[in-house]
Amino acid sequence: MTEQITTDNLDDFATGATVLGTGGGGDPYVGKLMAEQAIENHGPVELLDPSDVPADALVVPSAMLGAPTVMVEKMPRGTESLAAFESLERGIGQEAFATMSIEAGGLNSTVPIAVAAQLDLPLVDADGMGRAFPEVQMVTLTMGGISATPMSIADEKGNSVYLETVSNDWAEQFARTTSIEMGGSCMIATYAHTGEQLREHAILRSMSLARDIGETIRTANDRSVDPVDELLALTDGYALFRGKVTDVERRTEGGFAVGEATVEGLDGYDGRELTLEFQNEHLVARDSEAGVVASVPDLITVLDAETADPITTEGLTYGQRVQVVGMPCSEKWRTDAGLELVGPQYFEYDIEYTPIEQLHK
Amino acid sequence: MTEQITTDNLDDFATGATVLGTGGGGDPYVGKLMAEQAIENHGPVELLDPSDVPADALVVPSAMLGAPTVMVEKMPRGTESLAAFESLERGIGQEAFATMSIEAGGLNSTVPIAVAAQLDLPLVDADGMGRAFPEVQMVTLTMGGISATPMSIADEKGNSVYLETVSNDWAEQFARTTSIEMGGSCMIATYAHTGEQLREHAILRSMSLARDIGETIRTANDRSVDPVDELLALTDGYALFRGKVTDVERRTEGGFAVGEATVEGLDGYDGRELTLEFQNEHLVARDSEAGVVASVPDLITVLDAETADPITTEGLTYGQRVQVVGMPCSEKWRTDAGLELVGPQYFEYDIEYTPIEQLHK
Repeated sequence: MTEQITTDNLDDFATGATVLGTGGGGDPYVGKLMAEQAIENHGPVELLDPSDVPADALVVPSAMLGAPTVMVEKMPRGTESLAAFESLERGIGQEAFATMSIEAGGLNSTVPIAVAAQLDLPLVDADGMGRAFPEVQMVTLTMGGISATPMSIADEKGNSVYLETVSNDWAEQFARTTSIEMGGSCMIATYAHTGEQLREHAILRSMSLARDIGETIRTANDRSVDPVDELLALTDGYALFRGKVTDVERRTEGGFAVGEATVEGLDGYDGRELTLEFQNEHLVARDSEAGVVASVPDLITVLDAETADPITTEGLTYGQRVQVVGMPCSEKWRTDAGLELVGPQYFEYDIEYTPIEQLHK
Repeated sequence: MTEQITTDNLDDFATGATVLGTGGGGDPYVGKLMAEQAIENHGPVELLDPSDVPADALVVPSAMLGAPTVMVEKMPRGTESLAAFESLERGIGQEAFATMSIEAGGLNSTVPIAVAAQLDLPLVDADGMGRAFPEVQMVTLTMGGISATPMSIADEKGNSVYLETVSNDWAEQFARTTSIEMGGSCMIATYAHTGEQLREHAILRSMSLARDIGETIRTANDRSVDPVDELLALTDGYALFRGKVTDVERRTEGGFAVGEATVEGLDGYDGRELTLEFQNEHLVARDSEAGVVASVPDLITVLDAETADPITTEGLTYGQRVQVVGMPCSEKWRTDAGLELVGPQYFEYDIEYTPIEQLHK
């Protein structure tokens, strides 16, 4: 029996993906609105298990690219993601069998649901990161030798750009400049790949994990259970810190939302301070006593201390009571090639990556 | 009888186009080398009269985009212009009947000759400006409603960008950023149009005019005539100033070569000074006594005082003895629409355009 994404369970997908999105991936509300409207107009979307994608079928991920701080202000029209998607199909000369989320981040997990509904395509239960990351080349597909290009980029004015590059780093460079030129955000279709490549190189079943996380958080209160405990059980995660947000610095830099948040300890963390550094996503969490308690590529997520609802980096504000959690990333990211792409040193941190389960033995 | 562009007459085309290029359009030497090598490898290029292009045949101009100061340092590989050209043909889904120069500027008049030789296509005896201009939308084709996009852009590394934009101004914006991202210069195929549109909206027979100018300058010494007099007769032009270059300021700004040159008067202009302001091309010539003696869209060109060889803005240096000439632009540029695109006010000069023949009555 295939599962459907409907207006009833959409919230769970969005909430769970925002937890996996580690603060980035954009405002879940914007993407959810887009997906909701598309499902209302075109009907529910089939969530397709990766094992059901034929080996030679074409999977075309769809995403928004830009600074989340801009995306909140500049609502997409909805037509630009279709324009990008269809332009890529034309360029490749093959129809897509399904679409997919390139990242399990708030907005970018729901944007492809809108595309799937509008084009009557299934959404594959997978993504390219198992979390969110700020740059185009930062997907496990890169390690599988899958090219980010041809990539099609479209804006709400009707402009479009079709990229073919010699590396995924060049794809990032051109796409980033284009997103800035397009006003800070744009819609893209990228990393077209086959069913066979999907099963080998993507992060599988991350959408159903997101839905489970969202459902857990939504129903915890009724079930009189602690949603954080359940979330940690679902994700093999760790409670890192509890406290009050006392400072948030953020700026938009080179098309990214970059900054730092400080959390003052409470509820057993009294007298301590946690510093979160982010570039769209949270990258490093430092405890004033324990030092680094989690770092990329492992997941760091800030939750509302009461409801366990995830808070994105652009949603962080002074005074919030928060629970910070850490979760292990995919083993694909823990290889040398993975750490070269998304390890702390790529983000210019002078720290060696230590898997979160070793930090919390 | 159709005329051929060969390694024997190539110099004349390049020299004449550099005169019409008003200081811009890039180093003629680089483009000439490319064309020469292509003709040696693939044979001469047919120069096709505009009347010989079928009404529905596709003409695809080919050009280099970027700052001439960069182009001198960063030699193209030769494959990128073919990549851009063929990508545009694929995108449009129609084979080109001929290629064309988008501007009558040093390098951009000869780049399409190389493309024509390599692809065994004729070169139409026409261009999109009748001179050179710095920005993508500044062609008479824009006034004819012909779109700059689809535009294909390629670099020497193998990256390519295919643009579809809602206006030629947006095309300029995306293409300019891409040229900067590609290292300051790149090859483009743009403004695809039909034979019918060509005859109505392009500047016709500017390539054969360039050849005549080049031939005149080359043979003047042997014929014991004044090449400047002959050049002015061929172009209905005016002698504006003679003197010695005493100052050149230039900088690369937003992908353009921007600056100012000062010429101290000699040979009848003693005690006066001419100031030339340029953005890739010369835009305004001011005489310290007579005021503005020529401005865009009319042509302003600096020639060697002895040989009448044209000097590009990046070739201007202290101490050169020069003859400055002015020539009327196409009537297409003197319309309201034309002046809006390329008049002095577009370039932020607070002067009204006065046709050069009125300034020199």
